[in-house]
Amino acid sequence: MKKHTGKFSVGLIQIALSKNQDDNLKKAVAWIEKAAKNRAEVICLPELFRSRYFCQVEDIENFELAEAIPGPSTTAISKAAAKHKVAVVVPLFEKRAPGVYHNSAVVINSDGKNLGLYRKMHIPDDPSYYEKFYFTPGDLGFKSFATSYGKIGTLICWDQWYPEAARLTALKGASIIFYPTAIGWHPHEKEEHGKAQFESWQTVQRGHAVANGVYVAAVNRVGLEKQTEDSAGIEFWGSSFIADPQGVIIAQASTDEEEIIIADVDLSRVEYIRRNWPFLRDRRIDAYEGIVKRFIDGDI
Amino acid sequence: MKKHTGKFSVGLIQIALSKNQDDNLKKAVAWIEKAAKNRAEVICLPELFRSRYFCQVEDIENFELAEAIPGPSTTAISKAAAKHKVAVVVPLFEKRAPGVYHNSAVVINSDGKNLGLYRKMHIPDDPSYYEKFYFTPGDLGFKSFATSYGKIGTLICWDQWYPEAARLTALKGASIIFYPTAIGWHPHEKEEHGKAQFESWQTVQRGHAVANGVYVAAVNRVGLEKQTEDSAGIEFWGSSFIADPQGVIIAQASTDEEEIIIADVDLSRVEYIRRNWPFLRDRRIDAYEGIVKRFIDGDI
Repeated sequence: MKKHTGKFSVGLIQIALSKNQDDNLKKAVAWIEKAAKNRAEVICLPELFRSRYFCQVEDIENFELAEAIPGPSTTAISKAAAKHKVAVVVPLFEKRAPGVYHNSAVVINSDGKNLGLYRKMHIPDDPSYYEKFYFTPGDLGFKSFATSYGKIGTLICWDQWYPEAARLTALKGASIIFYPTAIGWHPHEKEEHGKAQFESWQTVQRGHAVANGVYVAAVNRVGLEKQTEDSAGIEFWGSSFIADPQGVIIAQASTDEEEIIIADVDLSRVEYIRRNWPFLRDRRIDAYEGIVKRFIDGDI
Repeated sequence: MKKHTGKFSVGLIQIALSKNQDDNLKKAVAWIEKAAKNRAEVICLPELFRSRYFCQVEDIENFELAEAIPGPSTTAISKAAAKHKVAVVVPLFEKRAPGVYHNSAVVINSDGKNLGLYRKMHIPDDPSYYEKFYFTPGDLGFKSFATSYGKIGTLICWDQWYPEAARLTALKGASIIFYPTAIGWHPHEKEEHGKAQFESWQTVQRGHAVANGVYVAAVNRVGLEKQTEDSAGIEFWGSSFIADPQGVIIAQASTDEEEIIIADVDLSRVEYIRRNWPFLRDRRIDAYEGIVKRFIDGDI
């Protein structure tokens, strides 16, 4: 394996996904190869990449889309990872036990070995994003994974709105936090609210980069997906991006094209930014205990 | 007192400050009157408004700038607050006891009564911002204050980089978080780093607005201040701003002019944004206990 050099390149694979799960896996493997040839060393796929975003409806048939870990996806991608010497974040609909399903991400190292699992901790439930129906909340906490290139963190989509998740992942030593994502516009809302929604999404993640002095990488899918003929569907907004530890966008994809974006994670930049803005030094850990409360009532 | 109407207007006073403490107090009172005439109901002054930003050097003479609470500033501003029926956030260099000084903010209600005190929790120490020399870290925790117009939170400057501070203030019921601030460029760094520094500062605060569904208001001073003749000084960057609960900038001041910016805090907008993006609903309070650790070593 490559020695740590203090720098590694990450590649985000922004693609459209079809109804055919086998095609999606083949496509992912082909794009991993393409990213590796473009010198990516740590690669991330979009959330739930083996299927359409089925959570637009509540339908028990969709549990058939889940797979065990290890399973066909990890087998195929481990092979590709070892072949191309790349680490890969593999977001999957995990079948853990009958009736226990998770929205998960496996981290596969550049030798093809499974480094571990993250299970989405924050589960949304909004019109067309009925995830609480499908996904048991994660029970593995917030994690970082030591790939052969460097320490990375993985969070998934809705997690990106939670500063606690980013903080805990950074405190576990990650230099970059990957957010495999499936987010888009309701077509009827896009004109009025689309810009503000997108900017909130990007801003809060750039804020995590700043507050923690880490790189942040969001990996979204593209395309309009309808679960039923008569629905408006979701227009996934692509726009996968990488922000540096100061929150500066250093790579950004289009809203609608399949593409790979690549940027370097430079550990000396993490060090430099954290020395100049030593936020971690001054945290008031003696005064944060209220964070574990739902709400703090009764204070004047 | 005015009944809660679900909406109130806030006014941020962006001014330059001189070496004369009495002049600064008179100036603040005059600008409070001006803001009230421009229909502001809750008004915030810049951090340490009674003096120049003396923390550019470590000099024990500067402790003479501190004052007791209550003291001359609260007396004068209480009178103005009652006269104009405005609530005011009054940031002061607090003399609490011999050798115990804080960087604090008093909240005065629209009847002139003191609603309580916040003491800056996160204390920076960087070249030209030697605050650890002057300020004992706050011991009152994170707070909100029920003014006659609505519930507000107060944090101070360096606190703005800490998601924990914003979260705890929001959990205490604040609809808006005020950040009295003294931040600027080192003149020799401005050209190379100025833009990224400013954007990081604004982005992380907009991120707090998004993550918590609250308004955020940062109130900075303007002007170049030198503590010694031969120093480059700090060029305070003004740019006071108000972001809505979606992180959208709804008012922003210039980088170098004295001015008041005014915007409405609309509680129905807080409600609307939090219903659409119910982040507070899905917090994993069972999994955040690590937040009270400095760093989490040893995880793979």
